[in-house]
Amino acid sequence: MTAAPLDIVVMAAGRGTRMKSRIPKVLQRLAGRPLLHHVLDQAAHLAPRRVVLVAGHGAMEVEASCQAFTPAEGLKDLKSVRQEPQLGTGHAVQQALPVLAGDGTVLVLSGDVPLTRAETLAALVAAAQPERLALLTVELPDPSGYGRIVRGAGDAVQRIVEHKDASDEQRAIREIYSGIMAVPARRLAPWLARLQSDNAQGEYYLTDIVAMAVADGVPVVAHRIEDALQVAGVNSPAQLAQLERAHQWRAAEGLMELGVRLADPARFELRQDARSGAPGELVCDQDVEIDVGCIFSGRVRLGEGARIGAYCHIANAEIGAGAVIHPYTHIDGEAVGVQVGDGALVGPFARLRPGAQLGREVHIGNFVEVKNSQLADGAKANHLAYLGDASVGERVNYGAGSITANYDGAHKHRTVIEADVHIGSNCVLVAPLTVGAGGTVGGGSTLTKSTPPGALTVARGRQASIPNWQRPAKRRSPE
Amino acid sequence: MTAAPLDIVVMAAGRGTRMKSRIPKVLQRLAGRPLLHHVLDQAAHLAPRRVVLVAGHGAMEVEASCQAFTPAEGLKDLKSVRQEPQLGTGHAVQQALPVLAGDGTVLVLSGDVPLTRAETLAALVAAAQPERLALLTVELPDPSGYGRIVRGAGDAVQRIVEHKDASDEQRAIREIYSGIMAVPARRLAPWLARLQSDNAQGEYYLTDIVAMAVADGVPVVAHRIEDALQVAGVNSPAQLAQLERAHQWRAAEGLMELGVRLADPARFELRQDARSGAPGELVCDQDVEIDVGCIFSGRVRLGEGARIGAYCHIANAEIGAGAVIHPYTHIDGEAVGVQVGDGALVGPFARLRPGAQLGREVHIGNFVEVKNSQLADGAKANHLAYLGDASVGERVNYGAGSITANYDGAHKHRTVIEADVHIGSNCVLVAPLTVGAGGTVGGGSTLTKSTPPGALTVARGRQASIPNWQRPAKRRSPE
Amino acid sequence: MTAAPLDIVVMAAGRGTRMKSRIPKVLQRLAGRPLLHHVLDQAAHLAPRRVVLVAGHGAMEVEASCQAFTPAEGLKDLKSVRQEPQLGTGHAVQQALPVLAGDGTVLVLSGDVPLTRAETLAALVAAAQPERLALLTVELPDPSGYGRIVRGAGDAVQRIVEHKDASDEQRAIREIYSGIMAVPARRLAPWLARLQSDNAQGEYYLTDIVAMAVADGVPVVAHRIEDALQVAGVNSPAQLAQLERAHQWRAAEGLMELGVRLADPARFELRQDARSGAPGELVCDQDVEIDVGCIFSGRVRLGEGARIGAYCHIANAEIGAGAVIHPYTHIDGEAVGVQVGDGALVGPFARLRPGAQLGREVHIGNFVEVKNSQLADGAKANHLAYLGDASVGERVNYGAGSITANYDGAHKHRTVIEADVHIGSNCVLVAPLTVGAGGTVGGGSTLTKSTPPGALTVARGRQASIPNWQRPAKRRSPE
Repeated sequence: MTAAPLDIVVMAAGRGTRMKSRIPKVLQRLAGRPLLHHVLDQAAHLAPRRVVLVAGHGAMEVEASCQAFTPAEGLKDLKSVRQEPQLGTGHAVQQALPVLAGDGTVLVLSGDVPLTRAETLAALVAAAQPERLALLTVELPDPSGYGRIVRGAGDAVQRIVEHKDASDEQRAIREIYSGIMAVPARRLAPWLARLQSDNAQGEYYLTDIVAMAVADGVPVVAHRIEDALQVAGVNSPAQLAQLERAHQWRAAEGLMELGVRLADPARFELRQDARSGAPGELVCDQDVEIDVGCIFSGRVRLGEGARIGAYCHIANAEIGAGAVIHPYTHIDGEAVGVQVGDGALVGPFARLRPGAQLGREVHIGNFVEVKNSQLADGAKANHLAYLGDASVGERVNYGAGSITANYDGAHKHRTVIEADVHIGSNCVLVAPLTVGAGGTVGGGSTLTKSTPPGALTVARGRQASIPNWQRPAKRRSPE
Repeated sequence: MTAAPLDIVVMAAGRGTRMKSRIPKVLQRLAGRPLLHHVLDQAAHLAPRRVVLVAGHGAMEVEASCQAFTPAEGLKDLKSVRQEPQLGTGHAVQQALPVLAGDGTVLVLSGDVPLTRAETLAALVAAAQPERLALLTVELPDPSGYGRIVRGAGDAVQRIVEHKDASDEQRAIREIYSGIMAVPARRLAPWLARLQSDNAQGEYYLTDIVAMAVADGVPVVAHRIEDALQVAGVNSPAQLAQLERAHQWRAAEGLMELGVRLADPARFELRQDARSGAPGELVCDQDVEIDVGCIFSGRVRLGEGARIGAYCHIANAEIGAGAVIHPYTHIDGEAVGVQVGDGALVGPFARLRPGAQLGREVHIGNFVEVKNSQLADGAKANHLAYLGDASVGERVNYGAGSITANYDGAHKHRTVIEADVHIGSNCVLVAPLTVGAGGTVGGGSTLTKSTPPGALTVARGRQASIPNWQRPAKRRSPE
Repeated sequence: MTAAPLDIVVMAAGRGTRMKSRIPKVLQRLAGRPLLHHVLDQAAHLAPRRVVLVAGHGAMEVEASCQAFTPAEGLKDLKSVRQEPQLGTGHAVQQALPVLAGDGTVLVLSGDVPLTRAETLAALVAAAQPERLALLTVELPDPSGYGRIVRGAGDAVQRIVEHKDASDEQRAIREIYSGIMAVPARRLAPWLARLQSDNAQGEYYLTDIVAMAVADGVPVVAHRIEDALQVAGVNSPAQLAQLERAHQWRAAEGLMELGVRLADPARFELRQDARSGAPGELVCDQDVEIDVGCIFSGRVRLGEGARIGAYCHIANAEIGAGAVIHPYTHIDGEAVGVQVGDGALVGPFARLRPGAQLGREVHIGNFVEVKNSQLADGAKANHLAYLGDASVGERVNYGAGSITANYDGAHKHRTVIEADVHIGSNCVLVAPLTVGAGGTVGGGSTLTKSTPPGALTVARGRQASIPNWQRPAKRRSPE
């Protein structure tokens, strides 16, 4: 059987009052990514013909975020309609009708339900073939607030009753409707046209089409799943936090199945990058170890045997094989990336910023910042130092407290430190300049011009002592 | 009905042997606050006529801590009596009798039960009106060690049996007495006078008054609550840790209900400030985001849209709207406070100490310490720097590695950096001095006197190179 | 009764395919220690006559790790045999037979089951006396994959059926065999000789000896324990993480029972030291407080009333009484150790490296690194500084940004700073040199030779200003 064409409606008009936020609910972030983008990811996996977003509260922001969604393979046609005012879920789908084709299957998703698995949705869509109404349901220990699945003879689904309209007997039902359904497109329009708002909330309920389907002899299928997280929506910061933890736990489990060793899967974060919008993606070679409390964002690759110490942040970076990132190291490559070479040692308390490129066995120690600089194999900057806009040769030893003065107040200039140079402690290298290969710079020197290869260069004052000098003493208060 | 006058007895004489600590049990800290102060907070909410503390083990320390308790609205009359030796709970209340009025209601609290809600206590006190003995009880899955509520015909409470004195049948009872009761004052003295110590522990049990009440025809009410945490006492470090987590989870939930977005409510701390004793109080405007592992103490205010990165410590500080505090930032305003302006960027690895006042859009970067200094709007100190006792003008750029030398060994002096100054890298500004507006200080300069506005000031040695210089080489061991 | 001689066979030949690692399974690390060493620790507690390791996959690495195991009291005779190819658990024990004496009791342990308590094993061995086959068993909610204990009349154990060979009825049994048994040595050889491989996996199952024991009239005892963690094996990174958490929780509980106050026992780590192999051992005096997220490794001692701030790493160090280690402090003494004196204050953001020895009331502040240096009582280095290979006298004040230049590119030299010296900010002390007692070094000075006691020493350039200097301006693009 050729699959019927699939169109998807994403409900994204809700206000989310309980979030107590200026941000529209579907733009709240889970793992750094708007809820809506999680749902669009799910949609993309199904390779639909078209996706129609129904925006309402905060529609302009929601539509802008939609534009910013990186179109995945399989999500080519994304349209938006507005629901203003919001008169219920049935009314929402009515707004989408004009841009839906009349054939195939329509899948209705909620923009605030981020953790549904694509295979669950595929199964739901399959259950709607050839012409059935398929509802995604789940049994909850506490179904309060949800629409209940009312079944009749032979356990056949009769209708959905919203909580506010339910009798006590109906409220005892624990099987609930998730808000997600697949419906034959050619039935949808006439059913929507017949919706009434004579209910507790005075709204047009999409769920009322279930009873219509029964009346019209269209089979209604409840596709019941076990995992309530897949249909959990976000209505409050507490629910958002709960789903965040569930999502991160899933991510941790996925990595462990591939062989990554996490010291504590409950203290692990993988997120979309805040600036670039790159989704959280952690690719690990064999025998990677990640200690407690680490946070990854954007695209990160960890080479074979790499070890990441506790409480590190690593974003948009590639870490080489056998590299050791000591605790409290902050690495963020932003748009341009950071590379750490094989066998490099970084941290503790190190910061690698965009454009830091460390060769093999480079050492970056405590309280050292590296930005937009290349360090060739074996170079070292072990203590309290800044390297910005610098090219550092092989085996260079960059002294404690030394600084590349790369900024003249208007422009950035480059510092070149050739191979085998030793820079003493507390030096300032005022860019642009080049320290010639094999040279030595005495501690405390401020260099303003280039130095010849092999030379010892010093720029400091003469040492002189004043004997028997009295340091200022604490003033005593007069007695 | 006018409420009867309320007096409160707080039992605070216990040793807490299992704590294995030199600190009296009621002074162990939960969320940075002595257990006893949590209980006094509860008492204050009830606006009692008088609170009587019964001290025993470590009485001097306990009484001193009581003096240090910031008297809350509604807690005006706080007295202390001593129980020496400790002959049981009944004996403890006997010590309080001389300073209790003979009318109204007496509420007995335990100084080591920190998480009782004030509304629970109010309900218990109400249940004791007009003249009843009201016991706070709870059902536990494992009631071992607790006094059991023995009921008779019609489920009426007959007596409380201590665990050590209970029969096997009584030990099967899962409803236990919490140690908290409300009792008619005019009945208390005669009952206490009749207590005997003919029991397993040879002590005078307060709980024996229950049977006396029954005998005297005073109705006994068990006010049973569901939440065992409210009556949980602290007897060991493990119990203290368990209540700490419960308390912090409550705090996190409270914030989330107000709209604060916490990445993980299980990794969040809000504490009393260790130095000032200011209670943990976090006030957040809309759309505040707090990443994992943050620790707040004292009074902290976070402006609209402020974002706090992972593993930050923030104490006694105000953070402006839209400010971003990057990970591993340590802010502690102690008694004088810290202010961070709207839109400021701070961290990672930054430290703001008391008296740091950052204007709008100030940037404080990695490995930078600021103490007792004002930075005007747009000023920047991005790398490895120290600013102490300094006034920094608008748009100043303070170079990497630069230091205000504010201490002459005896006194602190101020450094003034006027607007639009650029300070180069690794400079030392020996206070007191002023760098005039718009001036520039060359990298590596040590300034000992003020500089004119608009000038370039340099204080460094001349650069010279010695060609073909041989660095010391590793000594080889003789073959 | 004199105990029969005990020999122990440790099964360590398995591949651990699901670990997806190049490291043999029994060398995966729990709390920083190879699983195998945990099992050898258990063995050592039983003071056996001999331990025989059966190696297979990665045998060379496994045997090398065994050699590196610090021989505990009671583990004097450790032999290794190879099982190649691996034809099942019975086949594994067959390889050990030649090096086992024929008398006494043989205890079979799994090298990947790290959390068995020694008292459990002792009870199992006792249950095998005088001549019984004793099986360690446990009931699991989900017994899938494990060998089931099949009982017959009078609940007597009849046999063990491997999961793959079990009928549906047998699979419903929830009591499983742990892989750990104690068996009379004189019975073992003939039983092993009779093993067949006619089963689902075509392997020689050690478990088949149970039916043989029953047939031979040797009593079979199931020693059933409640705590499934004790028999949990490691087959995947997820299981390893789960046991890591259980192990750390146990460690935290053990400390709390001794009176240590942990802010969160779920965020606490105690590990074997990665370099020295010293087992994780944390010895605390009274009233020690440890905040959330701390990581200890190797041998650490915390003095009375010491307080360890959040997210600290402390390895191979002794912290004095009343010392306060502020958050994010990294201390690692490696092989030589670190000492922190009574009442010292360290951090936040401090790093103490091997050979750091701080006297009483020493202060080490933010962004300060100390390595192989002695600081006498009352010395201070509060801000952005490096002290390496230095001897620092009493009450010295070491200025912000100052550095000991201890490395000439080939050798390390010592810096001596005598008592009561004040070193200014951003100084460089080029070792070897001595700053004489009571002396002062002006900020920004680079010293290359020793200074007299009591003198003010300065080495810096003259300050000069160029008026009306124009800073470079941003180039404008031509219009």
